[in-house]
Amino acid sequence: MQFLPQTTLFEIEEGDKLRPKFNEHDLIPCITQDHASGEVLMLGWMNPEALAKTIETGLAHYYSRSRQKLWKKGEQSGLFQHVISLIIDDDQDAVLIKVKVDGGASCHVGYRSCFFRQLARPTADTDFSLIFLEAQKTFDPVKAYGLAASSLPSKSTRVAS
Amino acid sequence: MQFLPQTTLFEIEEGDKLRPKFNEHDLIPCITQDHASGEVLMLGWMNPEALAKTIETGLAHYYSRSRQKLWKKGEQSGLFQHVISLIIDDDQDAVLIKVKVDGGASCHVGYRSCFFRQLARPTADTDFSLIFLEAQKTFDPVKAYGLAASSLPSKSTRVAS
Repeated sequence: MQFLPQTTLFEIEEGDKLRPKFNEHDLIPCITQDHASGEVLMLGWMNPEALAKTIETGLAHYYSRSRQKLWKKGEQSGLFQHVISLIIDDDQDAVLIKVKVDGGASCHVGYRSCFFRQLARPTADTDFSLIFLEAQKTFDPVKAYGLAASSLPSKSTRVAS
Repeated sequence: MQFLPQTTLFEIEEGDKLRPKFNEHDLIPCITQDHASGEVLMLGWMNPEALAKTIETGLAHYYSRSRQKLWKKGEQSGLFQHVISLIIDDDQDAVLIKVKVDGGASCHVGYRSCFFRQLARPTADTDFSLIFLEAQKTFDPVKAYGLAASSLPSKSTRVAS
C-alpha cells in the first residue's frame, strides 16, 4: 500500500484524500479512542507499514519505538483493537482511530486507558500530585503477558530505572 | 515552574507524581478533548514552558513548531481553551487535557475539531477517499484571523504548496 503524497496546502487541509505526513523518524502519532465511551485509551505511533496494516486489516497496528518493530496491538495480551473509524487531522500529521477493544483494556500497566492519572489540581499546581482515575486495574499484566508489566517494553523508549 | 525528573520506571508508570518526559526536541504531545462531548479536538505539542503556563493559568498553551514560539490557544481567534483536567499517560510522554472551548471551535480551518475528515472505508481501502464529518465550518477563519486560513501557520511545520 502506497500512500498519496502531500501536495498543496489546500489539498492537504481541505481536500478529500488521505495524504498522511510522517515525521523525520517516519512516524505519525495516533490517538486511540474507545468508539462507544469516547474515552481516550492511548497515544501510539505508526510508521507507514503500521498505518497500512491498520487500514488493510481493521485491527490497530503501531510501531514500537522501544522494540523498533511493527506491533499488532493485542498480539501478546489478546486485547485486540478493532477499528471502527479512522480520522485524520487538518494538516494530516495526526491520526485518530475509534476502536472496540477486546477485553476492554488497552494499557500494558493493566488499566483500561493509558491515561489513568490526573493532576490533582489542574491549575496553579506546584506539587504535581496525581490522582488515579481507575479504582483498579482491568487485567493483571503478569497474567496477560506472563511477566511483570514493568519489565515489558512499552510503546515508548524506556527510561533506565 | 520546574518539573520533577523522570526516575524509576515504577515511579513513572505507577507513581503519584507528574514527571513529564519531553522528546529530543523538548516537546510532549498533547491530546485536547472536549470535556463535555468527549470529542477529540486536536493534537498539539507543548514544551516545558507551554505545559507550565497551561498548569499555571488554566488556559491551554502549546508550542507552535511552525512559528517556533509559545502559543496561547485563542490569542488571535479568541477561541480560548479552558482546562478542566490534565491527565498523563502511563510512561508520561503524552498529555491529555479536557477543555471547555470558547466559541466551540478549535481548528484553524474553521471546524469544531481538527479531526473533521474520516476515511470513507475504514478497512481494505485503496482509494484513500475522505468524508467530511462536520457539515459546515463553525466559524469563518478569514473573519477570525483576518486572513485566509491557508495562509496561516498551523500547529505543525507547513508543507510548501
